[in-house]
Amino acid sequence: MAASEFDLISRYFKRPVASDMLGVGDDCALFTVTPGNQVATSMDLLLEHQHFFSDVDPVRLGHKSLAVNLSDLAAMGAKPIACLLGLALPRVDDPWLQGFSDGFHALAKQSLCPLIGGDTTRSSRDIAISVTVFGAVNPDVALKRSAGEPGDDVWVSGVFGAPDVAYRMLAGLIPMQEEILRQTRAALEMPLPRLELGRAIAGHARAAIDISDGLLQDLGHILEESGVGTRIDESLVPVHQALSGLSEDIRRHAVLCGGDLYELCFTAPPSEREKMVSISHRLGLPLTRIGELTSIPGLQLMNAQGHAVIPPGGGFDHFRDA
Amino acid sequence: MAASEFDLISRYFKRPVASDMLGVGDDCALFTVTPGNQVATSMDLLLEHQHFFSDVDPVRLGHKSLAVNLSDLAAMGAKPIACLLGLALPRVDDPWLQGFSDGFHALAKQSLCPLIGGDTTRSSRDIAISVTVFGAVNPDVALKRSAGEPGDDVWVSGVFGAPDVAYRMLAGLIPMQEEILRQTRAALEMPLPRLELGRAIAGHARAAIDISDGLLQDLGHILEESGVGTRIDESLVPVHQALSGLSEDIRRHAVLCGGDLYELCFTAPPSEREKMVSISHRLGLPLTRIGELTSIPGLQLMNAQGHAVIPPGGGFDHFRDA
Repeated sequence: MAASEFDLISRYFKRPVASDMLGVGDDCALFTVTPGNQVATSMDLLLEHQHFFSDVDPVRLGHKSLAVNLSDLAAMGAKPIACLLGLALPRVDDPWLQGFSDGFHALAKQSLCPLIGGDTTRSSRDIAISVTVFGAVNPDVALKRSAGEPGDDVWVSGVFGAPDVAYRMLAGLIPMQEEILRQTRAALEMPLPRLELGRAIAGHARAAIDISDGLLQDLGHILEESGVGTRIDESLVPVHQALSGLSEDIRRHAVLCGGDLYELCFTAPPSEREKMVSISHRLGLPLTRIGELTSIPGLQLMNAQGHAVIPPGGGFDHFRDA
Repeated sequence: MAASEFDLISRYFKRPVASDMLGVGDDCALFTVTPGNQVATSMDLLLEHQHFFSDVDPVRLGHKSLAVNLSDLAAMGAKPIACLLGLALPRVDDPWLQGFSDGFHALAKQSLCPLIGGDTTRSSRDIAISVTVFGAVNPDVALKRSAGEPGDDVWVSGVFGAPDVAYRMLAGLIPMQEEILRQTRAALEMPLPRLELGRAIAGHARAAIDISDGLLQDLGHILEESGVGTRIDESLVPVHQALSGLSEDIRRHAVLCGGDLYELCFTAPPSEREKMVSISHRLGLPLTRIGELTSIPGLQLMNAQGHAVIPPGGGFDHFRDA
């Protein structure tokens, strides 16, 4: 079918936007920013074979393409304003586009983050997806990676390990167990950006990051940018219940190094503990204190007996692991 | 070489940014917007084989990746604020990255459009480049495609046809003529975004678009969005001097339908003619009046004798031409 680029945009992606915005269809999209706010912006590039399987449900892929970017806004404490989508496709596949745009727009609507522009183009072989999001954030409470201080508690949201196990089963890296895959797959394919959490902890937490490359690696970015160290009790990290039947090696790798999780890891002074408990109750989302920041550089991992243990090998690095 | 994603970012792309910005290295980049301005934003996705040849000079590719996006800001009358870069690479090639980042940053610096974030990742086969730009624009004078009115003059900047001829020679679609390629290649590989022009005509011009897909096709977007028609004198469109030795067919296609030009096409009331002449002199850039908008729908193309002529077949459509 010889649909043109312009048909694709209006058929699948053009939606009404607020009156102070100019949406899809001009050289640029326009939006207004509330005075006193900064604009937070983030982009991610997702490629077939590298970041998603070719046969993934397009509705879930549309959801995830936006979710991973909204997760960056969440980790900054920002409120979504709008997004842009770049899509390179080897061919026009209407059912695929319908599914992808449905999944994308459902999350955009739910997150109050309308699609206001972008670019569609033909690719020679693989699908490439590029999403840019914009959010508003009060600069005084933006959750920067550099803001952690020794003595801060280290907190995580949610439960760990499910997306890594699902990914490794689908990729054939660990033995397939259908029942475990069934219980973990949605965590891989439909991650929930923690936007409400990010905005709730802004002003109370100091540093924050979303877990895209694995807990140890992403926490490492906070340590590096804040110039601090950390001591973490591995046994306190909450594990997804579906992982209980797996070997310790697989479970430890998934929990400590597994990427694609999109929960938040953040630091806050101990005086904010009650506040965090109340936020956790209000949002119906587990928040768990797993350790503290220290003035001694490096990451010390402890077991439940208080002994230092060696971390499993590394997180996910887009160029190192290939 | 096993360079990690983080090394790549800091080695090639991290640069100091203004004190009211947060640049590369956090979940989001942050920037401040001047009160009363809107943020204009645009993104383009460029793919190896589709949008550039694999052996193109990486310095020129870095320049062009940013230039095509800045051109969208120019066509809106916006002033650049900052940009994001997404880069998917099949391997880490240091000389290539050095060249690409040099070309990108040279234009970013010249355009006062610092790189403040983005994403690098591994691709399985081809290079993919995604650039998002942000600019500030006064909403009262933003050059929207929908703002054209019957009676407006139709103007174009610069000279036409060179990038299309260079592209078609390099792609083997028309016979190679080394001397003509030598004279036209820079127009294809190092387009100059017309940022100063866009800001100068904002408040005087009505509708504007940058010519990425060909004059007739891009002007067609103004007609459609503004609900008007146009009458254009083909003989008035300024032609690059290197095209004089080419056949009429090749020249007409290049001038009227050739993409990748990044000159501006805009409309303005006849009362603004003197202003346009003075802007042209000040910027040292030809501005040429090639026709007018009409209330009769459609595009009427005339020759120098005032007779209606048939346009060459279409512009460039990313999905139709493949």
